[in-house]
Amino acid sequence: MEPVILDETVAQLRAALQRNDLSQASQIVEALRPADQADLFHDLDDIQQKKLLPKLNPADAADIFEELYDEEAAELAVQLPLGTLIRIVNEMEPDEAADLLDDLTPQQAEPVLAKIKAAHRIQKLIRYDDDTAGGLMTTIPVAIERRMTADQAIEAIRGWNPDDEMTYFLFPTDKLGRLVGVISLRQLIIAPRNRPIAEFMDTDVVYATYDTDQEDCADLMLRYDLLALPVVDENDILLGVITVDDLVDVIQEEASEDIQRLGGAEPLDRAYLDTNILLITQKRIGWLFMLFGTATLTGWVMDLYANQIEAVLALTIFIPMLIGTGGNAGSQTTATIIRAIAVGDVEWEDGFRVWWHEFRVGMILGVCMAIIAFGLAYLWVGDERLAVTVSVSIMVIVLWATGAGSLLPLIATRLGVDPTVVSGPVMSTLVDATGLFIYFNIAKFILEI
Amino acid sequence: MEPVILDETVAQLRAALQRNDLSQASQIVEALRPADQADLFHDLDDIQQKKLLPKLNPADAADIFEELYDEEAAELAVQLPLGTLIRIVNEMEPDEAADLLDDLTPQQAEPVLAKIKAAHRIQKLIRYDDDTAGGLMTTIPVAIERRMTADQAIEAIRGWNPDDEMTYFLFPTDKLGRLVGVISLRQLIIAPRNRPIAEFMDTDVVYATYDTDQEDCADLMLRYDLLALPVVDENDILLGVITVDDLVDVIQEEASEDIQRLGGAEPLDRAYLDTNILLITQKRIGWLFMLFGTATLTGWVMDLYANQIEAVLALTIFIPMLIGTGGNAGSQTTATIIRAIAVGDVEWEDGFRVWWHEFRVGMILGVCMAIIAFGLAYLWVGDERLAVTVSVSIMVIVLWATGAGSLLPLIATRLGVDPTVVSGPVMSTLVDATGLFIYFNIAKFILEI
Repeated sequence: MEPVILDETVAQLRAALQRNDLSQASQIVEALRPADQADLFHDLDDIQQKKLLPKLNPADAADIFEELYDEEAAELAVQLPLGTLIRIVNEMEPDEAADLLDDLTPQQAEPVLAKIKAAHRIQKLIRYDDDTAGGLMTTIPVAIERRMTADQAIEAIRGWNPDDEMTYFLFPTDKLGRLVGVISLRQLIIAPRNRPIAEFMDTDVVYATYDTDQEDCADLMLRYDLLALPVVDENDILLGVITVDDLVDVIQEEASEDIQRLGGAEPLDRAYLDTNILLITQKRIGWLFMLFGTATLTGWVMDLYANQIEAVLALTIFIPMLIGTGGNAGSQTTATIIRAIAVGDVEWEDGFRVWWHEFRVGMILGVCMAIIAFGLAYLWVGDERLAVTVSVSIMVIVLWATGAGSLLPLIATRLGVDPTVVSGPVMSTLVDATGLFIYFNIAKFILEI
Repeated sequence: MEPVILDETVAQLRAALQRNDLSQASQIVEALRPADQADLFHDLDDIQQKKLLPKLNPADAADIFEELYDEEAAELAVQLPLGTLIRIVNEMEPDEAADLLDDLTPQQAEPVLAKIKAAHRIQKLIRYDDDTAGGLMTTIPVAIERRMTADQAIEAIRGWNPDDEMTYFLFPTDKLGRLVGVISLRQLIIAPRNRPIAEFMDTDVVYATYDTDQEDCADLMLRYDLLALPVVDENDILLGVITVDDLVDVIQEEASEDIQRLGGAEPLDRAYLDTNILLITQKRIGWLFMLFGTATLTGWVMDLYANQIEAVLALTIFIPMLIGTGGNAGSQTTATIIRAIAVGDVEWEDGFRVWWHEFRVGMILGVCMAIIAFGLAYLWVGDERLAVTVSVSIMVIVLWATGAGSLLPLIATRLGVDPTVVSGPVMSTLVDATGLFIYFNIAKFILEI
């Protein structure tokens, strides 16, 4: 495995910057790979970044911009001299350049757009929403037409800018520019040189339209193991291609969002330590308040059964344990089902089978927990009837929690809501209130209070 | 967007199988793309699957096997006639074939290995652990040597089996087979035909050794946007290549594991509805018991403060609300930090900065929650001092939960433990017990009980 960026390099760069030796500083950065450059750059403070950037080779500066989080890149961009920014944007991939310019205000973006080379291509890309196929794709420098021979197609590729993003697959079009097939570079290489590519291309091509959601694009690429997904307009005209590195970014982004939502926090858009604490607070406080609101329900249930609590004070000892176990059993189920939905193993139509699966799992878990809980409660309080109450309650609560946990994510998906929002904290809070209700009613019945 | 598999197709296939018209059934399956074939196949019962498989074109059957979950594929494989299995394995990618044969018993695998074509390549792959670079890579059919000219290299590619997996990048070696560079197919196409590829290949190549962990391989490929990662042995001899579709699988697998662990369940190895309920139970019961054990701590704390509860029974009303909010605030933090660790934004060295970040977020959240809680408790119970108790407690608990939530995942990572195990349920349960302790002590002090 290759060594990733070294602490030594960081120290050297810092020293060079302190000596104001910008040419040595640029040399240090330029010797690294883009991801390492971005990391190193990230460790510098604002002033050092602004000092170094204009001195870097524009191609390297462009690579760094492409690796930064979107907001960070935009903040840095507006602080640069216009000439430097234009040189850098000229070296960026069109899709990345469009994302960057889209994050600036129109007043900031206009002078850049007026002077860059690929302005026309980039302006087209800015029009599309960031999280659709149009926003994700990169435009194609030169189209390959199906009547071209293999040799002509290779000639066309030779003419492309060597820095342009390229894929292993090419997408031939007809004369009107409509997508008609797919061909791999390898097929192109081994094809007879003078025959039109229409003869050996694959006409069964998977594609997206410009307004397809990015998650659906990722699903298509994952499902069919695609390294490139062509994007067309409503008339089947080829607009661009989504490359596999964008797919990987989408998968990572969606996983980040899912994990943060599972924890009950709205996802952050930039690196954690660079996110302002007010923004982090804002992403969390809504859920926390809402859950607090729901949690007052538990207080209300407690209040409702105040007589029972007063009659058998020992009931309270087991409250946190019971609702905690219910919340945990429910979270286990929702996490499993959410993932099964995400990878396509389970859908709405499977609802009953899923519930029945979880019901049986819940039965086994419930019975096991009930046995342990009986022993524990009996040892603790020495009262058989109370031990039975705790034991029966935990069984019913686990069964209820697994059942609710299996259906809630499916119902959310059906309603078009992201299933992660009904998971984790929401699940626990719901089970808290309902679990107490179950507990006190079982207590009323068994203890006759 | 392309239509995914249709219900009609499923009905047609079922009908054909019921009529025992196996040739029509195979035609229906063979007309689809591999992922759709696997989905359709998946919907059939065991008997239908075994009936259909020998009739399919071996290449299509191989595609289906590659799409199935590992365990499912192994179970199906042992039920097939040996001849059919051999024909199918012959058509599989070497890395997938090795995974399949590795999941069979040696007695089952041996007769297959004795008769397949690429036995030598596959046997080499079986030796490597499934979750290392060696287990993930596919072997390379023909090596490209650096002294070859561009034309000779293209000739070599022409000689490859058209079904063999191939990448956009080739990895030239020296005469001893040691990895010396990387070259894209595009560079190969546009290179002068009679010059050795050593002249235009890139010698700065990122690689893994056969025993590199799959997660580290994925990190390297993600970090450097690689479409193919070459794998070498201890002498730098090129062994194979990890392709980007394997990377995507690893990312998906790791995200699945993280999400299930966040919910407090051990990850499942196969499709949810195909996983036996006993196995699902087994994956959950350990955690549930452990958390139940921890939850008895809360019971113990309740018991410890029985006098205070008896003195001010209204204290109990707020217990679920307080510990619930603590658990939620803690889960929000752990989820955010776990993801920040996973994407490389945060590491152990940032511990203090992370804690300080969370401390300030916790302060704001805590103060906001305290204000609401004061109002609510006062309206509810009408006792100022109790309202102050609840209000101060919620502030301290939120602060404590965010602090613990920020440090626990980092400490886990430092100790080499997967940080997801200290999240969600574990966090909630820990905060339950400690939160109660905080609450009762504040109550003792303010209410003087």
